[in-house]
Amino acid sequence: MRAVRLNEIGGPEKLHVEDVPQPEPGPGEILVRVARAAYNRRDVYITQGLYPGIALPVTPGSDGAGVVAALGAGVAGPAVGTRVVINPQLRWVEGGAPVSASSSILGMPVDGTFADYCVAPAANVYRTPTGLTDDEAAALPLAGLTAYRATFTRGRISKDDVVLVTGVGGGVQTFVLLYCKHVGARAIVTSGSDEKLERAKALGADVAINYRTSAAWHKDVRGASDGGPTLIVDSTGGDTLGKCLEIARPCARVVTYGGTTGDATIRPFSIFWKSLDVLGTSMGSPSDFAAMLELFEAGLRPVVDRVFAMDECAAAAERMLHSEQFGKVVLAIA
Amino acid sequence: MRAVRLNEIGGPEKLHVEDVPQPEPGPGEILVRVARAAYNRRDVYITQGLYPGIALPVTPGSDGAGVVAALGAGVAGPAVGTRVVINPQLRWVEGGAPVSASSSILGMPVDGTFADYCVAPAANVYRTPTGLTDDEAAALPLAGLTAYRATFTRGRISKDDVVLVTGVGGGVQTFVLLYCKHVGARAIVTSGSDEKLERAKALGADVAINYRTSAAWHKDVRGASDGGPTLIVDSTGGDTLGKCLEIARPCARVVTYGGTTGDATIRPFSIFWKSLDVLGTSMGSPSDFAAMLELFEAGLRPVVDRVFAMDECAAAAERMLHSEQFGKVVLAIA
Repeated sequence: MRAVRLNEIGGPEKLHVEDVPQPEPGPGEILVRVARAAYNRRDVYITQGLYPGIALPVTPGSDGAGVVAALGAGVAGPAVGTRVVINPQLRWVEGGAPVSASSSILGMPVDGTFADYCVAPAANVYRTPTGLTDDEAAALPLAGLTAYRATFTRGRISKDDVVLVTGVGGGVQTFVLLYCKHVGARAIVTSGSDEKLERAKALGADVAINYRTSAAWHKDVRGASDGGPTLIVDSTGGDTLGKCLEIARPCARVVTYGGTTGDATIRPFSIFWKSLDVLGTSMGSPSDFAAMLELFEAGLRPVVDRVFAMDECAAAAERMLHSEQFGKVVLAIA
Repeated sequence: MRAVRLNEIGGPEKLHVEDVPQPEPGPGEILVRVARAAYNRRDVYITQGLYPGIALPVTPGSDGAGVVAALGAGVAGPAVGTRVVINPQLRWVEGGAPVSASSSILGMPVDGTFADYCVAPAANVYRTPTGLTDDEAAALPLAGLTAYRATFTRGRISKDDVVLVTGVGGGVQTFVLLYCKHVGARAIVTSGSDEKLERAKALGADVAINYRTSAAWHKDVRGASDGGPTLIVDSTGGDTLGKCLEIARPCARVVTYGGTTGDATIRPFSIFWKSLDVLGTSMGSPSDFAAMLELFEAGLRPVVDRVFAMDECAAAAERMLHSEQFGKVVLAIA
């Protein structure tokens, strides 16, 4: 079968298509014929060597949708041919510790979805929400899950919230914006790109602020939010996280699932004086995944940025690397 | 009546005793004949001008215990002569925003407990827990309340927790240690003073680490806690808070109620990868205060450091300034 492979560290350009043996489902596993896969920042970090516990060579890819091709021993269903989407969070102890090893995510070290066929534990294989295309279904897994846990399980969003979504455009933050508007909350988004801000407004963002053209963007956010956001979802870290704490309304929740700009200098005073909850989150639980799919079963649609052919796997990753996308970057497998 | 007064900023030495008019209880208020008062770091910060919204002259003091001297109009009880302790948190909207103005704490700008008589809203006056001396009762209010909310309401402590109490010795942290051992949790304490560590051990601390003699004290904490503390209570901020996040066990709660050493540089990775809860807290609610008193009604005893005469009000504050105390510094009024 064809698979996108990464044999050595060196950035997106090291991704290429090879012929590799087709995997077989072991006991308790399902073989999925992948129709569409999608990229996460994680896939790009791995090509750069910027992820814990990298083991090569590997077939990357955490997100995938397709049809059931074969059932391993002891697996009762779903039937061959059923349209499915894969939860890439391979190990999760409900109520216990969150992920603590990179091995628990499909797509490194376990071979992932950027291939004609992919094997996953039966418990990780879910029916595709009715009405979604394969492109849309492939867009859901890791970003939709991370955003779900950040926004609902950790962020405890309600319709009364004023939510700040920093750096809208990336896969996860676009889902956060979708969820905010789905529950009826007010959403303030930031980006360094006017084009992305326009797209966010089209998705329902109430206020859109360009942090490149407004030096005091955080004060603009405070001004637009009647005393500061009540919920902030951020994956930027660095200077941005410090500013988020500064403008958060008393008792706000500040959810962080990443730190792309590195260490943050923060004022403890902002946290204790305003009784903030600063809540870390990473991926999500099986319950989160099932609840996330329900939202899309009920009619929500994810944002697909662009669909790349399998041979364009490196170019697709480059698009992620340069943060050019708005929504999910999809890879057409079949 | 006699009162400790602060007429100008300039440090503890500016505290002195004056004769001032005795206050009268207004409608809904109670006049308390103060027997004992106690110091908080807040009182010292105010003498230094290091607190928001300072208004002088003032009678400082948030902590006080004594007897009911007179009831204002519309107040039904408790009867004159009843032993009482005052909740210094003057305004609190249950379930709403936490304190946001210094005016909500007794002892600046509202005249406080460092005087023969003190006026407080009737709802803030509670019966002294049975069996406590006036010294002990005066030791409870602000520190016992802050520690209660940090440990129970925000920290959600259980007997299964391994708790790190940084900088034990200050008023609040000594209460945190008391509460930890009361619920049966394992307590690891740090201090720069071997003498304080010995006293903490006498109170039940399971592990005591001197951060002055052990450069990698946080690694010692991790080594002594089977993978890191599950609950951390800190008011140090700065470098200490960053290290706390680094050693916290996955899913741990890190509660912060102060930042005495200033800004903190933190790794967002520690927060999101381990799904930490970093929880700010400041003072506490009326429910917290009532629940805190229950613990002492049930037999717990606070730690009194030393009792100073009223004329020694400046020396008592100096002791706080130099962090020489272990437990509460008490001022004998009557």
